Amino acid sequence: MSSMGPPADENLETKEIDLRSMSSSSLGQAPQAHKVAIPPRQNLFKEFQSTIKETFFSDDPLRPFKDQPRSRKIRLGIEAIFPILSWGRSYNLKKFRGDIISGLTIASLCIPQDIGYAKLAHLAPQYGLYSSFVPPLIYAVMGSSRDIAIGPVAVVSLLLGTLLSNEIDPKTNPTEYQRLAFTATFFAGITQATLGVLRLGFLIDFLSHAAIVGFMGGAAITIALQQLKGFLGIKTAHFTTDTDIVHVMRSVFSEAHHGWNWQTILIGASFLGFLLVAKYIGKKNKKFFWVPAIAPLISVILSTFFVFITRADKQGVDIVRKIEKGINPSSVKDIYFTGEYLGKGFKIGIVAGMIALTEATAIGRTFASMKDYQLDGNKEMVALGTMNVVGSLTSCYVATGSFSRSAVNYMAGCQTAVSNIVMSVVVLLTLEFITPLFKYTPNAILSAIIISAVISLVDYEAAILIWKIDKFDFVACMGAFFGVVFVSVEIGLLIAVSISFAKILLQVTRPRTAILGKIPRTTVYRNIQQYPEASKIPGVLIVRVDSAIYFSNSNYVKERTLRWLMDEEEQEKGDYRTKIQFLIVEMSPVTDIDTSGIQAFEELHRSLEKKGVELVLANPGSAVTDKLYASSFANTIGEDKIFLTVAEAIAYCSPKVVEDP
Amino acid sequence: MSSMGPPADENLETKEIDLRSMSSSSLGQAPQAHKVAIPPRQNLFKEFQSTIKETFFSDDPLRPFKDQPRSRKIRLGIEAIFPILSWGRSYNLKKFRGDIISGLTIASLCIPQDIGYAKLAHLAPQYGLYSSFVPPLIYAVMGSSRDIAIGPVAVVSLLLGTLLSNEIDPKTNPTEYQRLAFTATFFAGITQATLGVLRLGFLIDFLSHAAIVGFMGGAAITIALQQLKGFLGIKTAHFTTDTDIVHVMRSVFSEAHHGWNWQTILIGASFLGFLLVAKYIGKKNKKFFWVPAIAPLISVILSTFFVFITRADKQGVDIVRKIEKGINPSSVKDIYFTGEYLGKGFKIGIVAGMIALTEATAIGRTFASMKDYQLDGNKEMVALGTMNVVGSLTSCYVATGSFSRSAVNYMAGCQTAVSNIVMSVVVLLTLEFITPLFKYTPNAILSAIIISAVISLVDYEAAILIWKIDKFDFVACMGAFFGVVFVSVEIGLLIAVSISFAKILLQVTRPRTAILGKIPRTTVYRNIQQYPEASKIPGVLIVRVDSAIYFSNSNYVKERTLRWLMDEEEQEKGDYRTKIQFLIVEMSPVTDIDTSGIQAFEELHRSLEKKGVELVLANPGSAVTDKLYASSFANTIGEDKIFLTVAEAIAYCSPKVVEDP
Repeated sequence: MSSMGPPADENLETKEIDLRSMSSSSLGQAPQAHKVAIPPRQNLFKEFQSTIKETFFSDDPLRPFKDQPRSRKIRLGIEAIFPILSWGRSYNLKKFRGDIISGLTIASLCIPQDIGYAKLAHLAPQYGLYSSFVPPLIYAVMGSSRDIAIGPVAVVSLLLGTLLSNEIDPKTNPTEYQRLAFTATFFAGITQATLGVLRLGFLIDFLSHAAIVGFMGGAAITIALQQLKGFLGIKTAHFTTDTDIVHVMRSVFSEAHHGWNWQTILIGASFLGFLLVAKYIGKKNKKFFWVPAIAPLISVILSTFFVFITRADKQGVDIVRKIEKGINPSSVKDIYFTGEYLGKGFKIGIVAGMIALTEATAIGRTFASMKDYQLDGNKEMVALGTMNVVGSLTSCYVATGSFSRSAVNYMAGCQTAVSNIVMSVVVLLTLEFITPLFKYTPNAILSAIIISAVISLVDYEAAILIWKIDKFDFVACMGAFFGVVFVSVEIGLLIAVSISFAKILLQVTRPRTAILGKIPRTTVYRNIQQYPEASKIPGVLIVRVDSAIYFSNSNYVKERTLRWLMDEEEQEKGDYRTKIQFLIVEMSPVTDIDTSGIQAFEELHRSLEKKGVELVLANPGSAVTDKLYASSFANTIGEDKIFLTVAEAIAYCSPKVVEDP
Repeated sequence: MSSMGPPADENLETKEIDLRSMSSSSLGQAPQAHKVAIPPRQNLFKEFQSTIKETFFSDDPLRPFKDQPRSRKIRLGIEAIFPILSWGRSYNLKKFRGDIISGLTIASLCIPQDIGYAKLAHLAPQYGLYSSFVPPLIYAVMGSSRDIAIGPVAVVSLLLGTLLSNEIDPKTNPTEYQRLAFTATFFAGITQATLGVLRLGFLIDFLSHAAIVGFMGGAAITIALQQLKGFLGIKTAHFTTDTDIVHVMRSVFSEAHHGWNWQTILIGASFLGFLLVAKYIGKKNKKFFWVPAIAPLISVILSTFFVFITRADKQGVDIVRKIEKGINPSSVKDIYFTGEYLGKGFKIGIVAGMIALTEATAIGRTFASMKDYQLDGNKEMVALGTMNVVGSLTSCYVATGSFSRSAVNYMAGCQTAVSNIVMSVVVLLTLEFITPLFKYTPNAILSAIIISAVISLVDYEAAILIWKIDKFDFVACMGAFFGVVFVSVEIGLLIAVSISFAKILLQVTRPRTAILGKIPRTTVYRNIQQYPEASKIPGVLIVRVDSAIYFSNSNYVKERTLRWLMDEEEQEKGDYRTKIQFLIVEMSPVTDIDTSGIQAFEELHRSLEKKGVELVLANPGSAVTDKLYASSFANTIGEDKIFLTVAEAIAYCSPKVVEDP
């Protein structure tokens, strides 16, 4: 392809070029302070090593190991896997006070939530509690976030419930359904741990913040809709299994005249009111953060007591009836390691594991930046993965960090992961002694608790901010939101990922370019669109390319540059201005170039030669300079045409511009 | 997520900040020539319009329509679809002389090649000739490249043959195979035209130059290997159908003692020698470009005559035997528009169409840049697509631009697409009158012609250049090459595409960052790794981020910046240097930022505040400035901390640096 012969009519150009190069030597060059440095050539291995390091070990995880004796290295290695050994040594009573208060607070919040979330995943209520017992313990030993509160969360429960029930009907085959749930949890854990071990954690960054906001908001609405059945006391067996708003609302209203139960609605609505007021109080005054934190437990206790004395369950108020007593049974033998459900569990596990990871990572990062400590994302993934693998063997489903409980944990003054241990112990006691008391808890209360919990996931303020900042992000956000609300969770997720990717592709195929002008009384050259006072230099066109030049955009960059030149030439004709004789490409933002990029520059150079325009480069970076010389393109255009700054390039070009009418 | 409360210990910082802002006002600011301009807010519709324009209409195809009367607009529109109406008006006898010479030359080259390429696609020889008759005519009317030579090409023939025979065995079901071939051709055309109409032509840029070089080289080797059977006169029916080198060589050698035919080898080898010598002569002296161009036809004539008089076919020399006489029959009824083969034909068509497009586009661009004329890639795609759709209805298989014949066309002095018409007419005459004469043409000659034609696709010089310029590109190149040679064409293609995508992902997740220093006796700040003489400013760290900051890299950018700071602080401890008190982020290369990026900057600002380091920005571009203000992050850090240049930022920071041991 590149071995085509030279153009036949090259000779025509030679004379003109000769003239120009003569004039160049006779006029002399502007004093050039500094040549563009050609960086010392790295050897191949070093170059490769540094690329690998930036890609996979950008956080430099081995830094503490540097220059340490072997015994210390081993200890540091063990501590890296079990951070509890490191922070445990400096643990003290004062920290414990903070941890026990926050641990009790999140326990009181998590118990009613867990029971409700298990229902979202179409599992029996005790599985929610199981998942708040084992996973937090594992995380406390292996995790390094100090503020995250581990357990089942609403969105992952919904997602898991939807994906699993696409495969098996939880009503007709509850045992198989449950086994598939553990299988999916197992592979969710494996996925998370694998990403961490292979240091591929950056993959979750491909779900943009905007897409997550939309997805979470949509999921929250969907979850709230799901609760309408319990909240209104609808008992029909043929309530829709679809999660989209159209189907759910149709089902709700078709049951309106005979399916709704006014006692249920009364209980549900009054406690939902109570929960929302508590939430408002907590939001108004940070000191009262504990009000919304304990409100759910109080609601459960009050409503259970109320139903027990009034026997409202006889009036059609649906109650929990039975939660299995005792701690997690083993589920090792329940996991499908063969058969058709292996593949299905694997796929569902990957999706649920990634979403759980996204949530946990966002929480971890937020609080780490608030308290200013470092968090190794990949190590966190290993901790979360191990926790879910162990969980899947002990009857837990996918657990992760919960936004709402982590915020409460933080505000209650947690110091370390010990607050998770405290919560876990409370859950243990609940499982052993208190579960029978939940018998008369009305399901409507659980629905009310879930609705009040997920309502804050609809982050309309964030959506407004996204609209203000970036319209494209807003499209991604709304796409994910409406996809979840009107179609299904999977479709919403797919839309979110697709739009995020489309944005990346757009970024790499259509980089920005700008025409620069001189800012008066300076030697600074800036985008003339941003700085209207900047003025163009007669006979010279300065183009800045705002991206690395790779195969995906090299052709665009070339053609866009030529089009800038064409636009300029058209204006000239109108204005009788000096003909463009030099094209300066400001390369500062061009951080890298590949073979296609070099090829595009060669073609650009050839086209410019035909037009009698000289190509001049300003400030190529080290990687680019390296490649300009390696490809000998630097020789093609002449090494003296590469300058450190635009100002120096102008100092070279300007005196040579020939004015002609 | 973003609605978390403020950190609890914020109060501790307030005092220090107050002190600093006081000192700022008392010391006074360095004279700041220019504020960073906040670009005038575009209205939403305009912004959207300009994004759409740059993405899909970056080549401004409607430029000639601007400010024209309606009648002229209609004429221009028709001319845009049929460029022949535009250039035809200025066509003259001188141009025709060039076109007729080049048309005859490429015809003499294409006829023997067509017969061989049809065999690569497992089709009867006349289908190759059919494909050199109709498609060039359509292209001549609709296409705008002046140099491209249209017809069947080796790589697409091989790809089509491989993909089609995965579905249907051409030996046992030749009719169905042929129908599937037309179906695939139809959808290849539809794919090409659709990409063009939707202006998605840039999608083919996602196959990098390096990957194409590797893929083409591998395909050439595979094609040459396929010819060994005909070249050695192997007749066994159970010759491998795999295309990888291991299977083919094993088949060849297992037939060594009884399957090879010495007469065939003698004829094949002597004419291959002749062809290679002709090629060498043409390469040494550009004046003799016609020698390799007519050598194939001479070989065919000589060898056919030789076999005819010696009756070597009785000695086991395989001959063509029969080529159907007459022009293209209709194949409208052969295309599968229903049934299982519809989907298969569709998929194969997409792949073959994209590869054909890649080849044609590369050729079109190369020659357009050599002769310096503009080519509208999307319009070209519509022309190529229409040509293949019409071709599929007239018994042609996928045609595209051929590298070798286009180069000959160019060197023979073609002026317009009329050379394609001339070639087409010659092929027509051949089909009508000369095909019976090919009866005695030995297959070994066709193999020799194909081998000598594809050999130049192994562009080892390009591979060496790629190695020199970019190691990652080299990996993509070799991956595609070895994938094709050792596994199969599809796998090679898949590897090429995957590596190309991996590179894009790497680019967007791990942008480069650099520490800047002041170049002595200037106010220019540059990467201290590239310019070792550049010196750091005490108490100030200048970091440049070399990419747009998007969700895919925002977290990395934040953490990498903090790590630069940490590295610096560690060095300080050793050297008792001034503590870093200002972090200047040079934003020139940051062409855009999204909500995740703003969030990352907010987190960075918070972390820096904890460390007592002030965040200062230099030269944000217009899109970034806009968003800094829209998100009110500009207010968070203080508008006076945003400077036009690094030098001005330094002028602000330096006087405030407090020296402490």
